[in-house]
Amino acid sequence: MPQFLSTTDADFDTRFTALLSSKREDSPDVDHVVADIIADVRARGDAAVLALTAKFDRLDLTPATMRFTEAEIDAECAKVAPADMAALQLAADRIRAYHSRQMPTDALWTDEAGATLGWRWTPVSAAGLYVPGGLASYPSSVLMNAIPAKVAGVGRLAVVVPTPDGVTNPLVLMAARIAGVDEVYRIGGAQAIAALAYGTETIAPVDKITGPGNAFVAAAKRRVFGKVGIDMIAGPSEILVIADRDNDPDWIALDLLSQAEHDESAQSILITDDAAFGNAVAAAVDARLQTLERRAIAAASWQAFGAIIVVQDMAEAVALSDRIAPEHLEICTADADALAQKVTHAGAIFIGGWTPEAIGDYIGGPNHVLPTARSARFSSGLSVMDFVKRTTLSRMSPEALAAIGPSAERLANSESLQAHGLSVRARLDRLNRGGT
Amino acid sequence: MPQFLSTTDADFDTRFTALLSSKREDSPDVDHVVADIIADVRARGDAAVLALTAKFDRLDLTPATMRFTEAEIDAECAKVAPADMAALQLAADRIRAYHSRQMPTDALWTDEAGATLGWRWTPVSAAGLYVPGGLASYPSSVLMNAIPAKVAGVGRLAVVVPTPDGVTNPLVLMAARIAGVDEVYRIGGAQAIAALAYGTETIAPVDKITGPGNAFVAAAKRRVFGKVGIDMIAGPSEILVIADRDNDPDWIALDLLSQAEHDESAQSILITDDAAFGNAVAAAVDARLQTLERRAIAAASWQAFGAIIVVQDMAEAVALSDRIAPEHLEICTADADALAQKVTHAGAIFIGGWTPEAIGDYIGGPNHVLPTARSARFSSGLSVMDFVKRTTLSRMSPEALAAIGPSAERLANSESLQAHGLSVRARLDRLNRGGT
Repeated sequence: MPQFLSTTDADFDTRFTALLSSKREDSPDVDHVVADIIADVRARGDAAVLALTAKFDRLDLTPATMRFTEAEIDAECAKVAPADMAALQLAADRIRAYHSRQMPTDALWTDEAGATLGWRWTPVSAAGLYVPGGLASYPSSVLMNAIPAKVAGVGRLAVVVPTPDGVTNPLVLMAARIAGVDEVYRIGGAQAIAALAYGTETIAPVDKITGPGNAFVAAAKRRVFGKVGIDMIAGPSEILVIADRDNDPDWIALDLLSQAEHDESAQSILITDDAAFGNAVAAAVDARLQTLERRAIAAASWQAFGAIIVVQDMAEAVALSDRIAPEHLEICTADADALAQKVTHAGAIFIGGWTPEAIGDYIGGPNHVLPTARSARFSSGLSVMDFVKRTTLSRMSPEALAAIGPSAERLANSESLQAHGLSVRARLDRLNRGGT
Repeated sequence: MPQFLSTTDADFDTRFTALLSSKREDSPDVDHVVADIIADVRARGDAAVLALTAKFDRLDLTPATMRFTEAEIDAECAKVAPADMAALQLAADRIRAYHSRQMPTDALWTDEAGATLGWRWTPVSAAGLYVPGGLASYPSSVLMNAIPAKVAGVGRLAVVVPTPDGVTNPLVLMAARIAGVDEVYRIGGAQAIAALAYGTETIAPVDKITGPGNAFVAAAKRRVFGKVGIDMIAGPSEILVIADRDNDPDWIALDLLSQAEHDESAQSILITDDAAFGNAVAAAVDARLQTLERRAIAAASWQAFGAIIVVQDMAEAVALSDRIAPEHLEICTADADALAQKVTHAGAIFIGGWTPEAIGDYIGGPNHVLPTARSARFSSGLSVMDFVKRTTLSRMSPEALAAIGPSAERLANSESLQAHGLSVRARLDRLNRGGT
């Protein structure tokens, strides 16, 4: 059974705060191992990557076989059922259409002082995408990471995906092909992150690394951050559903379970203004848990971290939601649009009963890489913005420098940075002598 | 003497690569100390902050005197010379005008499948700004960090600034007032970062922390990252000037020195297509170093990390610049605008001889917090975007779910995430039975 809370309980605030701060992830401390792996790859390049792949993935590669050839990708793609291919293609088209609208625009203007100012966006030159092997090898993640990069204009996109014991997921390669990935390597773990960040004889270094991974991958990404850019370090998945009594309890139960089935550390919370509806959803969850394939995982998550919170009204629901700052927020109420407008902190909002969160995981169009662990208070999901960067532009006319330069000089001197001031003063002096 | 390189040298590539990878910063390993300080502040709150302030800043505060009162800020501001106040105000106005154009826009549309999609930007609720005390206590940094936050709509902006031995910089408080800062605390170091991130009895926690600081502050920011958002960890400053012979060597020398005077680890590089001009600039630097107030620092930086690179033509200059990915790039050539267009990786570009980089440090309008250490390859300077976050929005009509839901179900099943698929299927079944 999940926790039941009501905002009218005397101890509500204590219990809600405890729910918010429940530690859901036990990150093993693998930092020393990862530091050694990165040092090894920096020192020995391909040789280190190959040795570590033999050790961890039980796979003997050579520099020549590290990378999938086009023929090998063709052969894997040929194994994909046409309906799966069509579904991936539809998802890719919709993700591309959504993300294409995110491209930021350049600006350039001249202000009243005569200063020409602006900025220009340019894509990251090369990006690397980590794709986990084994059970959590999700083709949808390939699309969600690779398409924003390609929309941004990233010239070279390299995927690393471990193939333990040589087992490959054809759908991952199909997704990579559909998304326009340029290179795919059969490597994983911290060694793959190190190879992407520092390069080896076979793998050219990239400027930015994104994509999910296990504790080793996460620790490696943290370590190479600065040398390259990284995306967020994602925690276990979360969903908050705000629903009134006019919903099918089974639908809401399935939406809660679709996060719970990800991971024993996932968290699913229902907020409702109707206690009876809350009980009905709890019963529906239990019923579905009888037969769900991943019931062991889903039940463990629901038991440990699930919660049903009864509120007095939906304004209270929104206030609690902002304190949770959920990764996924589903709003299934009569006035769902109006309620969504009032939310301040959430990674993604799914509005109305016909929008199960799973649509967003695959095919809606928005990205499914979203801020977890309350970080929606200060960060956003993956987007085209993660693969571009801004260069600011300034051009002073002599008149502009004459107008604003003296203030710059004054501020420089107040900060005891004399050369700053002199660099302005030397030019002002020329102007004062009538020169340009 | 700085290094002289020419692209025609046989060993150019080796030397240029060495220049790029020169280790300019020796970060002391203070992580253990910082971890203890953060744990202490989390455990003891105000008491820890006060004890650490007494120890490191030789200043005895109480919870009641940690924060500057409005009357205290008034008194400090009254010490500021009117001309300094006017310069700060002009800088603030120009920075605000520039950053106001950065506000991203919301979007909402309905696509051909009947799916309503979009996103909404919201400000971070509360932000903290670290301002160093002592010599590097720069009012310009207060403006550059605080104004984008306020433009973004951050509701609460708290500044922490240590006042060792009780010494306060009136210009910092004036800048905070002009920028609309809400709270100013007389604390610094890792204890101030911990207080902002976790809160104490007196200081409410914030969601995002920005601003420069010493090794302790940087280590603390790294440690609290995840609990709150942080800006970049800035390294020593850098400038690259691309200049042809038609420049006054003294102007270019001063521009190079205006970075070199920041820090012995700063790096100033000139690229020119004229060796004689390069020599003239080197001579001008030496001449200015005779009298510069911060000549010891500037000379050490120029000696250790300065470089003059002679290229065959300006196309070569742009290619080298993109390998350097400089924080500041000044382009002083006949075709400066056209050359700037060709640059891919730079934090900020200053175009034409009338645009000394120092203008951008104070008063141009663009932000002076910029990516260092080649990170302009993948990151941008501080902006309004650092203080907002995006929530994606999705709303499916029944028709939209009927159109794209089956593909979502198919992909969910291919990833063995059954509940995801069932959450879609349950709704599709209702539709198939004619219900909505």
